[in-house]
Amino acid sequence: MSLLVTGSIGIDTVETPSGKVEGVLGGSAVYFAAAASFFTPVRFVAVAGEDMPPKFLSPLERLGNIDLSGLEIRKGSKTFRWAGRYHADVNVRDTLDTQLNVLAEAGPSIPAAFRDSRHVFLANTHPDLQAELLSQLRGPRLVVADTMNLWIENERQALLRLMGSIDGLVLNDSEARLLTGLTNTVAAGKAVAGLVRRFVVVKKGEHGSLLFVDGKVCALPAYPAVNVVDPTGAGDCFAGAMMGYLAAAGTYDAQSLLAGMAYGTIVASLELEGFSLEHLQVIRRGDIEDRFAEFVAMTRICPSVQAEKL
Amino acid sequence: MSLLVTGSIGIDTVETPSGKVEGVLGGSAVYFAAAASFFTPVRFVAVAGEDMPPKFLSPLERLGNIDLSGLEIRKGSKTFRWAGRYHADVNVRDTLDTQLNVLAEAGPSIPAAFRDSRHVFLANTHPDLQAELLSQLRGPRLVVADTMNLWIENERQALLRLMGSIDGLVLNDSEARLLTGLTNTVAAGKAVAGLVRRFVVVKKGEHGSLLFVDGKVCALPAYPAVNVVDPTGAGDCFAGAMMGYLAAAGTYDAQSLLAGMAYGTIVASLELEGFSLEHLQVIRRGDIEDRFAEFVAMTRICPSVQAEKL
Repeated sequence: MSLLVTGSIGIDTVETPSGKVEGVLGGSAVYFAAAASFFTPVRFVAVAGEDMPPKFLSPLERLGNIDLSGLEIRKGSKTFRWAGRYHADVNVRDTLDTQLNVLAEAGPSIPAAFRDSRHVFLANTHPDLQAELLSQLRGPRLVVADTMNLWIENERQALLRLMGSIDGLVLNDSEARLLTGLTNTVAAGKAVAGLVRRFVVVKKGEHGSLLFVDGKVCALPAYPAVNVVDPTGAGDCFAGAMMGYLAAAGTYDAQSLLAGMAYGTIVASLELEGFSLEHLQVIRRGDIEDRFAEFVAMTRICPSVQAEKL
Repeated sequence: MSLLVTGSIGIDTVETPSGKVEGVLGGSAVYFAAAASFFTPVRFVAVAGEDMPPKFLSPLERLGNIDLSGLEIRKGSKTFRWAGRYHADVNVRDTLDTQLNVLAEAGPSIPAAFRDSRHVFLANTHPDLQAELLSQLRGPRLVVADTMNLWIENERQALLRLMGSIDGLVLNDSEARLLTGLTNTVAAGKAVAGLVRRFVVVKKGEHGSLLFVDGKVCALPAYPAVNVVDPTGAGDCFAGAMMGYLAAAGTYDAQSLLAGMAYGTIVASLELEGFSLEHLQVIRRGDIEDRFAEFVAMTRICPSVQAEKL
C-alpha cells in the first residue's frame, strides 16, 4: 500500500576512515525512500534548489520504485548542504558545515495525487511544518515522524502538539532522554510512548533499538556490522525499511512493528557498507532477505534444556 | 554437573542514586556464585582476611547451593575492600577507594575435593594466577575466564598464554577493543575469538552482549531494565548464570551458549534491582524463568508477511 515520505534532499560531503566523497546525494527523505523502495512503492516529497547537479537523482531513479513527482526544484533557491567527518570510531562524527538554504524557506506542498497516501513518514524538520504537511493528507492509516535535539530543546510545545496527532515517533536514545529529562533510556522510551497515539521506536545505532507499544517493551540488537564505510543515513534507512515493510504488510501490531524494525536493522547495516546510496544501488531484495534470515538465526534464543527446578 | 569459581570476595561500599550501603558483601566470585546457584551446585574458591565481619557470608549460605569449603580465611590478612559511587546515569561510576589487601598476596589453593570440577570459571585476577589455578584441576570440560584492562595493558603476554589454554573468554566491549587495538567492537570480538580455544562473549552492559563462536556471531539486547538500584556485580552475575546454565545443560554448542547468555542477561537484570545480594536473596528460579520467557517473547522476530518480491 502507498507510502509517502516528506523530508530533506541534500548535497553531502562526507569523510570517514574509509575515504571521502564530495557533493553526493543525501538527505533524510532520500535515504528513507531508497530503503523503503525495496518493500513498496514510495511517494517522495521534498524541495531542492536549482543548483542541484544534473543526473543527481539518478541513484533514486535507478531504484525504480520511487515516484519523484513530489520533488520541487525551487527557482532561485539553493539545495541543502551538509559536510561531516567521522572519527576512527565511526560512532562519533563532527559536522563541518551545514547550509540549510532551501530548508529554511517555505516547505514543500504535497501533490494532489499523493494526498490519499495510507502510510506517512514525516522525516525530521520543524514540528509545525510536519503538522502542516500532515494536515494536507486525507485519512492516513499510519503516521510516523522523526525529530531531533533542536526541536526538543527549542520547539517543545510544537513537538508535543505534533506527537498528539501521530501514531508513532522514531528518535535516538539521547533524544528520548532529552525529551523526558530521564537518564534511563527504557524509562524515557516508556514516557515518550505516553505522548504519541501508539508507539515509539528508540534507535541506539550500533547498540540496536527498542520498541514501546501497547504498554510493552521489545528489544533488538543491531546487526553486528564490521564493514562500516559510512554511517550517514543509516537511521533514515532504518525508518525507511521499517515503514516500507509495514506498508507492504498492512498490519501494525507489536509483532509487525518488531519485524519492521528488524528489516530496518538489516537495510541500515547494508547501507553503511558504502558512501551515499552506493551500496543500496547494487543490492537486491534477496540480499536483504538473506541477511534478515541470518539475523533472525543469530538472535534466536532456544534453551537446550528445560528448567528442571521450577 | 560441577561448577567451580575462583575469584574475589570483598567488602563493598556503594553509593547510587537509589541510596548507599556500607560494608556489604561483594566481589566477583560472590556475585558469580550467587547467580550460578540458581542453576547448579557451585564450588567457591576465594580468600578473605580475618577482618571479615561475622555473619558476612550468610547471604551466600542462605542461597543454599554453594559449597564454601574453598573459602580461605587468612590469619593476619585483611579482606579486599572497594568503594564506588555511581552517577545519575548509572552506566558511569567513580571508584572512590580500592584496598587490594589479601588479593595482593598469594592466591587461594583449590581444595582436593574440588579438583575434579568439570566446569570452571576463572574470575578476573592476574592471568598467571588464573593459569596456576587452572593447572590444579584435572581435566575440566569447559574453562572460561574473565579479565580486565589492567592485565590487558600490563600483562599482555601472560594473558595471551592463558587465553590459549581456555575455551572461552568473557570481557567488556572496551576491553575487547583495547586488547586488539580495533575500534569496531564486532571486529575486535572476532579477533579475540581467534586467541582462545572456542568462544568469546563481549558484554556491553545496558546494550546487551555478543557471542563469537565457530566463526559465527550472535547478538542479544539487554533486558530493558528500568528499576536499576545498583549495577555492581551485574557482569559477574551474567557470567554466573551463563556458566550455571551451561553446567546444568552439559552442552556448549552455539545455541546453548546463546541460551546461557540469555539467562545471564535475565539474572543480571534481577540482581541490579537491589544492593549487594539483596534482590537475589528474595527471588526464586521461577522468577528467572518468568522473566526469561518474557525476554524471549520481546526479542523474537516473526515476520507477518512473506517476502513477496524474492
